[in-house]
Amino acid sequence: MDEIITLDYGSGGKKTSRLIESEILSRFSNPALGELGDGAILPGAEKIVFSTDSFVVSPLFFPGGDIGKLAVCGTVNDIAMCGGEAKYLSLSLIIEEGLERSALSRILDSIRAAAESARVQVVTGDTKVVERGRGDGVYINTAGIGFLRRAGLTPGAMRDGDAVLISGTAGDHGAAVMLARGGLIDDSSGAVKSDCAALNGLVDALFASGAEIRCLRDPTRGGAATTLCEFAGSSGLGIEIEERDIPVSPAVAAACSLLGLDPLYCANEGKLLCVTSQETAHAALEAMRAHPLGRDAAVIGRVSAAAKGRVILRTAAGGGRVLHKLAGAQLPRIC
Amino acid sequence: MDEIITLDYGSGGKKTSRLIESEILSRFSNPALGELGDGAILPGAEKIVFSTDSFVVSPLFFPGGDIGKLAVCGTVNDIAMCGGEAKYLSLSLIIEEGLERSALSRILDSIRAAAESARVQVVTGDTKVVERGRGDGVYINTAGIGFLRRAGLTPGAMRDGDAVLISGTAGDHGAAVMLARGGLIDDSSGAVKSDCAALNGLVDALFASGAEIRCLRDPTRGGAATTLCEFAGSSGLGIEIEERDIPVSPAVAAACSLLGLDPLYCANEGKLLCVTSQETAHAALEAMRAHPLGRDAAVIGRVSAAAKGRVILRTAAGGGRVLHKLAGAQLPRIC
Repeated sequence: MDEIITLDYGSGGKKTSRLIESEILSRFSNPALGELGDGAILPGAEKIVFSTDSFVVSPLFFPGGDIGKLAVCGTVNDIAMCGGEAKYLSLSLIIEEGLERSALSRILDSIRAAAESARVQVVTGDTKVVERGRGDGVYINTAGIGFLRRAGLTPGAMRDGDAVLISGTAGDHGAAVMLARGGLIDDSSGAVKSDCAALNGLVDALFASGAEIRCLRDPTRGGAATTLCEFAGSSGLGIEIEERDIPVSPAVAAACSLLGLDPLYCANEGKLLCVTSQETAHAALEAMRAHPLGRDAAVIGRVSAAAKGRVILRTAAGGGRVLHKLAGAQLPRIC
Repeated sequence: MDEIITLDYGSGGKKTSRLIESEILSRFSNPALGELGDGAILPGAEKIVFSTDSFVVSPLFFPGGDIGKLAVCGTVNDIAMCGGEAKYLSLSLIIEEGLERSALSRILDSIRAAAESARVQVVTGDTKVVERGRGDGVYINTAGIGFLRRAGLTPGAMRDGDAVLISGTAGDHGAAVMLARGGLIDDSSGAVKSDCAALNGLVDALFASGAEIRCLRDPTRGGAATTLCEFAGSSGLGIEIEERDIPVSPAVAAACSLLGLDPLYCANEGKLLCVTSQETAHAALEAMRAHPLGRDAAVIGRVSAAAKGRVILRTAAGGGRVLHKLAGAQLPRIC
């Protein structure tokens, strides 16, 4: 590993994995952490799901959301992906001296609205202020407590032949933030918007559908491709994905094409990847499509033991290529 | 309030209170948050204590500790002050690009040692990297989950005539960080050290002593004076403090005198303030003095209904003056 920490280590891709393995897992070893899920499931009578995320997005406001909405939805979603129902959030602000109070108010309004909508309570918090030039407006950390509703949702539960689904179009958040940041491309049509949303309602719908759900994860930093690689890597089973079946909005496809990005590696903040038994994939798909956040849901591939821990993308042209975790920092500071 | 957020709002004093009242409490209202304790106590069969803190101390390493030790002890202590036993921590790093890996390793070693010593497990986490000039080495957020052992520890439980105790010398952490930062004064003797420590063992000893404990709080940002003002303000009862009874180490007294600081307003990271019934104050004092972190514990004053929500300092010269919460930013970035 490098002697200094570079932006690549925050990409959510390969270097982030390496940093976590070499620096974190080597020191802190316990069953909850070792699972490396989106959160920890703690032992006890009523099983607690515990998760945290810091949000450092630049700019603070972007089409479809802002850092406040992101901070609520991100942690609610991490808990939902573990099979938990988020109930309580902590809220910690690291404010850069000079932040306009009106911006802070707008962000806090957004946090309140997102928390109400996701049915979580902000119960504790902290506020720090750092000198000008030591932050970027505001960084927000949320930690969340939820209670486990569905146990055993891990990539280890996947079986050969299972179906892989995505709840909607890929790459919206990453593309929207890049456009908002760069000012490179005029998107005055407003067609590219972050998909930032709390997914607990969609997960409720999936649970209610009766589908046999093996695992869930929201593909944030590193995008859908990186999350699929995590599924494949930690299960030992491979995944085959059909490129033509992956929903991408025309506006995001156009923006990514201009920016030189791949929507499969762009962050999502309101999408989930779901693996179900082949037999119940249709039930899961129908349940998602009936929900406002899952209208564009699609089956995009299947678990394949033959692919042996790799993710193979079957291209529209009939070829196949191996997908890897995001290498380097395609999109720093997008969540 | 000002139109922009200045460093004063992060001091832990008056402006921090005002910011929290006007921006946070106005938006997020629920019983757990409304208590404004060091953490939230959540309803349920087994009562959960939930707390969070972000740590932005500069410099990252200082005599007696570092940001990693601080991040563990700070959250463990907040939970202990609520009457909870901390069990699980989340760990979220916001790393500035360019941080030396050796510094990160040293901080993580320190986190591990502090967690082991405090008997808490790091079970979930997050890592972000921000561009050079958008952070300060590393900011760390921890959130903690504990289980309630002693309910009802709030300033509202205080009664006229109760005793006020401190577990040791005041102002060590704040003075040590200011000396480490400024390089203004040669403290090659190493006499001024942060008191950074996990207080859960000391709280265990207090509980075991049989003393009637009304409330506990660790006087961090804003120092002992600000915490006493919080006790007085939220109970409606006043507090009278004897200046000559407040333990201050000679080295801290000398450093504060040179720096123009008041030890009563300097942060502590390994001390607690405790209010007990007058009858059981001695038991509490003996229990603390028998513990390595409470050797210099002292009774420093009493609850006085006559002081009506104010804190009165009885000076060594026989006079009295009203103490207020820290105004402005005496010590930014000390935790």
